[in-house]
Amino acid sequence: MTVDRLGTVMAAEMGEQPQVLDRLLARAGDIAARLRPVLPAPLAGIILVARGSSDHAATYGRYVLELATGRPVASASPSLHMLYGARVDYTGYLAIAVSQSGRTPEVVEVIARLRRSGARTLALTNDGGSPLALAADEVIALDVGEEAAVPATKTVTAQFVAFALIAQAISDIGFGHACRALPDQISELLDDGGPPAALADGLADSDRLLTVARGLLYGAAAETALKLLETTSVFTAAYSAADLRHGPIAVASTGLPVLALAHPGPALDDVTGLVAELRRRGADVTVAGPVPDSRLRWQETAETVAPVLAVVRGQQLALALARRRGLDPDSPRGLTKVTLT
Amino acid sequence: MTVDRLGTVMAAEMGEQPQVLDRLLARAGDIAARLRPVLPAPLAGIILVARGSSDHAATYGRYVLELATGRPVASASPSLHMLYGARVDYTGYLAIAVSQSGRTPEVVEVIARLRRSGARTLALTNDGGSPLALAADEVIALDVGEEAAVPATKTVTAQFVAFALIAQAISDIGFGHACRALPDQISELLDDGGPPAALADGLADSDRLLTVARGLLYGAAAETALKLLETTSVFTAAYSAADLRHGPIAVASTGLPVLALAHPGPALDDVTGLVAELRRRGADVTVAGPVPDSRLRWQETAETVAPVLAVVRGQQLALALARRRGLDPDSPRGLTKVTLT
Repeated sequence: MTVDRLGTVMAAEMGEQPQVLDRLLARAGDIAARLRPVLPAPLAGIILVARGSSDHAATYGRYVLELATGRPVASASPSLHMLYGARVDYTGYLAIAVSQSGRTPEVVEVIARLRRSGARTLALTNDGGSPLALAADEVIALDVGEEAAVPATKTVTAQFVAFALIAQAISDIGFGHACRALPDQISELLDDGGPPAALADGLADSDRLLTVARGLLYGAAAETALKLLETTSVFTAAYSAADLRHGPIAVASTGLPVLALAHPGPALDDVTGLVAELRRRGADVTVAGPVPDSRLRWQETAETVAPVLAVVRGQQLALALARRRGLDPDSPRGLTKVTLT
Repeated sequence: MTVDRLGTVMAAEMGEQPQVLDRLLARAGDIAARLRPVLPAPLAGIILVARGSSDHAATYGRYVLELATGRPVASASPSLHMLYGARVDYTGYLAIAVSQSGRTPEVVEVIARLRRSGARTLALTNDGGSPLALAADEVIALDVGEEAAVPATKTVTAQFVAFALIAQAISDIGFGHACRALPDQISELLDDGGPPAALADGLADSDRLLTVARGLLYGAAAETALKLLETTSVFTAAYSAADLRHGPIAVASTGLPVLALAHPGPALDDVTGLVAELRRRGADVTVAGPVPDSRLRWQETAETVAPVLAVVRGQQLALALARRRGLDPDSPRGLTKVTLT
């Protein structure tokens, strides 16, 4: 198998993202209409239910939804409901479940239980006829088409954008004016494969990688860490810049490779300061984003939009590193598309 | 410096835990009385504010508090308040801040903002006169005495127990009847240094380690990962068993060392099944807990109490591995006791 035949499905699905997001952005009015009947008033808070890449979209969703609603937004602890049979009252809450297939049994069961416990429920899934869609009060079908590669790509960016559109439907988070440029921006990034390939060369022999970001970009850092791990089996972890300072920064002294995601905005100084400190301690830090010193740029835009571009750069890096190592990311070692937990 | 002079302060502070917890358990009535005036009725939910080891205690707190209250419990996203100036309404919420020193500026500022946004606020800190204690409506001072070693030990087990006592004051989570045995159980573990030392020998050359657990023990897995990273600079990450199946499990094929925490209870089957799958894929898995196949036992007890014992075993492993590598855990590379973020 030659290198350019590795990851052809993943690459093709990444290539569909401009069209997928174009269609999704055109549905902003439909998404707002589907949200309205399930948004409690008054709203106690929002709980997100997801695993894996979908949970990283939810991490981003947590920021934009709390900015939009002004009420606490957080992730569920599924084991409370699945294992410990917690008797809960979720009256006043909106629970949003996120699942590519809509068939992860745990996510379906948790959303059904939260609904019975008083929550209004919304499913974000590719398949409007899936068990998850049927279990929730309302569904926003992402309609990204079939996703065949095990590492989710077009689903993930669609989930990020869906969360932003849901938030924007509630209150202006600054996504509306910048989102129309996304499809063209992603096309440009996908045509610019040189920087991810060069970074992959530098990481060819690493068995460890730390990704770091702060605030809105943190979900993209977590997703990039998972995508690299799934496709290359490099042992990755994602930290927020603030959490890294509370102990984990000690690991920098071992020459650890670090990928730091940065974008102009309120979080930039924190990340820039951390990069300097990590380097002083001996880490091998690569900066990504539209900032000085970056080796993996994306376009400068509103900070609420930037995570979508960062996720695409992470996909490119994962694909390039898998190919560099002679691995096929379409079918990573023993992973399957629907996880039965 | 000889090996037995490394980590003497950390070891001494670990040794104080039976007495510290004895004193804290005797204050169950006082803790319930301090909670009562700040618990909103009706309760919208509970938000936890913490970083580092304190955040792992909060992870455990999230489970026991949701079991006790039946209302959603989750961690705050500090950057929403510190960087993005989110305009929020936390009316109806209890916000609990956890900080050893009570002087981490970010935690103090977030709790002050949540208080101004309508939340009732409670500080869990060693120092009842600290800025955090002054910023909150009510304080539960842990009174563990000065903690001089950078890796927090007696503070962390005290935070875990304080969360359990707070939960138990609201509703029976099964902590009450089992907690009195904790001080003696911890004394027994501290006298049993052989198993952690043997495990440390096996990890002497590893630069990566994954910890894994599910449900109530997950906070202990996260704390063990951080303690090992802080003291030894091994690159560690913690995963819930369920999240690990959603992609990260691919990394097992690289012979990754894994420490799996297990205890009899509803989460056991999931962890046992995962251990078998990780081994089948090539990971080097060590099981800890009072279960068959364990190489790092603690006493079988109520599952709500077990995380405290697991945290002590993790401290012992971190100390033993640091000594095995000739490192001084009292002052890890460049870390300081109060993190200024």
